[in-house]
Amino acid sequence: MRELTVELGERSYPIYIGQGILTNITALFDRAKLSRKSPLLIVTDESVAALHLERVLTLLREGGFAATACVVPAGETSKSLAQLEGIVTAALQAGLDRSSAIVALGGGVVGDLAGFAAASFMRGIRFVQIPTTILAHDSSVGGKVAVNHPMAKNIIGAFHQPELVLFDIDLLMTLPLRDVKAGLSEVIKHGLIWDAAFTQWCDENADKLLALDPEALSYALYIGCQVKAIVVSQDERENDLRAILNLGHTIGHALEAVAGYGELLHGEAISIGMVGAAKLAQQFGYSEDIHTVTKGLFVKFGLPVSIPPHLDTDMIMSAMMHDKKFKEGTMVYIIPTEIGKVEIRKDVTTEQVRQIVDLLKGEK
Amino acid sequence: MRELTVELGERSYPIYIGQGILTNITALFDRAKLSRKSPLLIVTDESVAALHLERVLTLLREGGFAATACVVPAGETSKSLAQLEGIVTAALQAGLDRSSAIVALGGGVVGDLAGFAAASFMRGIRFVQIPTTILAHDSSVGGKVAVNHPMAKNIIGAFHQPELVLFDIDLLMTLPLRDVKAGLSEVIKHGLIWDAAFTQWCDENADKLLALDPEALSYALYIGCQVKAIVVSQDERENDLRAILNLGHTIGHALEAVAGYGELLHGEAISIGMVGAAKLAQQFGYSEDIHTVTKGLFVKFGLPVSIPPHLDTDMIMSAMMHDKKFKEGTMVYIIPTEIGKVEIRKDVTTEQVRQIVDLLKGEK
Repeated sequence: MRELTVELGERSYPIYIGQGILTNITALFDRAKLSRKSPLLIVTDESVAALHLERVLTLLREGGFAATACVVPAGETSKSLAQLEGIVTAALQAGLDRSSAIVALGGGVVGDLAGFAAASFMRGIRFVQIPTTILAHDSSVGGKVAVNHPMAKNIIGAFHQPELVLFDIDLLMTLPLRDVKAGLSEVIKHGLIWDAAFTQWCDENADKLLALDPEALSYALYIGCQVKAIVVSQDERENDLRAILNLGHTIGHALEAVAGYGELLHGEAISIGMVGAAKLAQQFGYSEDIHTVTKGLFVKFGLPVSIPPHLDTDMIMSAMMHDKKFKEGTMVYIIPTEIGKVEIRKDVTTEQVRQIVDLLKGEK
Repeated sequence: MRELTVELGERSYPIYIGQGILTNITALFDRAKLSRKSPLLIVTDESVAALHLERVLTLLREGGFAATACVVPAGETSKSLAQLEGIVTAALQAGLDRSSAIVALGGGVVGDLAGFAAASFMRGIRFVQIPTTILAHDSSVGGKVAVNHPMAKNIIGAFHQPELVLFDIDLLMTLPLRDVKAGLSEVIKHGLIWDAAFTQWCDENADKLLALDPEALSYALYIGCQVKAIVVSQDERENDLRAILNLGHTIGHALEAVAGYGELLHGEAISIGMVGAAKLAQQFGYSEDIHTVTKGLFVKFGLPVSIPPHLDTDMIMSAMMHDKKFKEGTMVYIIPTEIGKVEIRKDVTTEQVRQIVDLLKGEK
């Protein structure tokens, strides 16, 4: 079992990564001082519930915890205020109190929804993340939780750090290959923004990662979480540094919005976005190699590197203008300066981004 | 103009109290470094909008702020997730960004709703309180914001401190007498828990306060806010000391719930609750005088001191058991030990409280 700590003063918490570690769930809950006197509520979705819920409930109950579950439909549409209200109903019916915890068992959608429920129920109770996707290595670290509004993603939320993250590699073995690839996209991103050696390692271990080799996967998730933890520790509330985690996300979010959520997975959309950011880097005088390496890496992982031609450039640009990362009209953009390093630029013009979007439509 | 600061480290903020100070709104917003580049959203209710909204909008716009308004129906039912969604819609349409602020113009309902919107929109933007009721001197200080769930009041919320509180006494002049009395109930509470001299002062100045004498009212609100500010500064998240602010609230909340919100105003319900707590104090060996003085004070202010006989004791007790202040089955109760001092007791039994409820039905 690998372990690392997200350093946030009194809000610090551990991340445990390893194969089969779910078996130790009650010991890890004890280490986090979760209360056996107060009920726990597990929030999960229908897909994950079918695979893992009974086992988690049994392990917790055998360990002396009073656990009940609230199951929401699978998919992004569950990140809604209506589902939040449903979770609060379940929490009240289960008798949760201020010493209770909400446990998110699932991917990013469940983590964001359950996390916001934990952040706002009784003005904040404790929260545990048990991610069941590779992508969730990203969303489960850092405390950003939210639900969507019909007009905007993640616009209603909070910063609420979990007590612990329990990442059992075994839970990832049933993931469809497309989700594996899309999840690895964020892992690769953590290399591109922070760690050139890890980027190299990803390139060399692509086959193992795609085949879900437990040791390779465990290591990649450990490094991915570590990079995120370092960044979040230095800037919990995204005042400055944390923005670097958005590499590829400006174009990525716009593509998700225009394609309609589902056509492009998040990891696929930001893969295209990171290739775009690498292309943009050339305009600021940085090496062409960044684009070559970035694009090569995503191609190797079977991830898309070009914008589907049927997506309209005007609509992509318009979606970007609504993105909440625009501050007082200024466009903030994350640009790689070399592999493993990025900078936050505030001088990128809409016109430059439009050119990149057009270029990305032609990338092969 | 009176001014005091709620000391909360980097979340410290000023409270301004005085007659006619709304005229200085843009100067006070400048002092709080609110941005003219980012739109402001004023949240208010239909009743307050009819009286004050145009003037506030005009003052802000003439001062160079881009302000728009979102008007919700008056009353407790607006503290809902549905209204939260409506405010977020308005915020998105008005183009609010991370440097924007939401301004609550109204009483406790508007403050709680708008405050939770500010706490969760984009995971937290800035927030200003312009209270228009006496009661709101309490709710506008301390950062507790929330909406209701059909099964429980204030159960979905956050701790989110405002940038400033602007309390213009002129806005209180149109309040109905019943709301004046109910609002003064929380003012008196702040004396009872913290300041015997102020309790004495309230007793001597009851007529002036009930007649809305600007100088007396301004002083009373100043002291009320000051007591709350001191308590909140020492315990922002209600781990211990802050619980003393709940004097009278255990029975009070239960009475509100059983009577149906509206029959008893909050200030009326806690007036009865404070008389009950004073009675309970005798059982723990404290002086009978506490009860005599407390009851006399509330009678002088025209506030109720007995439970309406048609309210069922079992239902009151059952409502109390659902109150979120019960932690792991233990009953926490705030008891006065003398006028101006209280203690947090954890050994109060359900049976003792039931006796007090029965006694309160007979108080004349």
